[in-house]
Amino acid sequence: MSFHYEIRLSGSGGQGLVLAGHILAEAAALYDGNNATQSQSYGPEARGGASRSEVIISDGDIDYPKATNVDLMLALTQQACNKYVADLRRGGILLVDAEEVTNLPHGDYKIYAAPITKIAELEVGKKVVTNMVALGLITELSQVVTTTAVEQAIRKRVPKGTEEINLKAFHKGRAAALKLQNNSFNSNGAENVSFVSEVEAPVSLE
Amino acid sequence: MSFHYEIRLSGSGGQGLVLAGHILAEAAALYDGNNATQSQSYGPEARGGASRSEVIISDGDIDYPKATNVDLMLALTQQACNKYVADLRRGGILLVDAEEVTNLPHGDYKIYAAPITKIAELEVGKKVVTNMVALGLITELSQVVTTTAVEQAIRKRVPKGTEEINLKAFHKGRAAALKLQNNSFNSNGAENVSFVSEVEAPVSLE
Repeated sequence: MSFHYEIRLSGSGGQGLVLAGHILAEAAALYDGNNATQSQSYGPEARGGASRSEVIISDGDIDYPKATNVDLMLALTQQACNKYVADLRRGGILLVDAEEVTNLPHGDYKIYAAPITKIAELEVGKKVVTNMVALGLITELSQVVTTTAVEQAIRKRVPKGTEEINLKAFHKGRAAALKLQNNSFNSNGAENVSFVSEVEAPVSLE
Repeated sequence: MSFHYEIRLSGSGGQGLVLAGHILAEAAALYDGNNATQSQSYGPEARGGASRSEVIISDGDIDYPKATNVDLMLALTQQACNKYVADLRRGGILLVDAEEVTNLPHGDYKIYAAPITKIAELEVGKKVVTNMVALGLITELSQVVTTTAVEQAIRKRVPKGTEEINLKAFHKGRAAALKLQNNSFNSNGAENVSFVSEVEAPVSLE
């Protein structure tokens, strides 16, 4: 069975989405044995606010490194969500930061909302690992890379001495995905984070 | 005057060409005020040997992030040179590591050969900054980014505490470019590096 999977990571500059893209691409290509491309644009958007990084994973050749029919999109900010959701395919997965993206787009998407930044801050203790929490969620929701491959790529790519906290964040993200998938939300919980459920029929809050 | 400039950085994995690509793209977009895309492929080539990172810089929109008509190509290894030179445009610049790429391709190229790796090892004392030496050469030979923009991007991107050695390497690369352009080679020199001249009519050594 051949596959071609497009991932768009969007948010604001400085959220580590380029690094997250490299890790996904390397996990897929170096450790899972598939092919991958990774790209990003710099320009007015990089200076302004919304930014994105894209990864395409396939078991065949990838001629065109730009994502045009996105299977999974991460949006860490409302601005990025609004700007980049148009290329998400019908039935694709939209993963948003539940506290940042409150105005969910209309469309035939499978929407998962989790407090990604909050998990990094409160469960791991470092907002800077928000990207790794997101990677954990993406790994579980997409099933396009293996957990062990992502772990290896994280170890290779993050600064020396920060491997464990980055891996902890990755696994917190994986756990959050499992909670979302199992609909077992922790809304009053010991961990001080709340999960928004998978929204089957997203409602605009405008 | 509008412009569109494609740069391909090629060599082997672990030579820091992806980082060099990010620095070029950020210099162009964040500090020079142009647009840029940066991309790379991972796959059999990443596992095998030759690897590449691509940057496109324009003052207009860039729809297609893959380089197809390359204006300047860096080749740090013979394998990468052989594999990727086909997309270099007629009259384009081929910058090679003089000690690694001895079998120069035929074609209507402007070829510059400098001992890039040796400059990093002997003049800066760290082989790991080969990518920054290459950036210095590219900055001068392409004239597509400003020196100050690249300096700012280097400071932003390299690990804390290594800014000065990376900038030193960058400036050694710039100096090497000026020597090449001035045809003032240092073949027996105090710095223990030799420059191969710009080859007007490259000869295959096969």
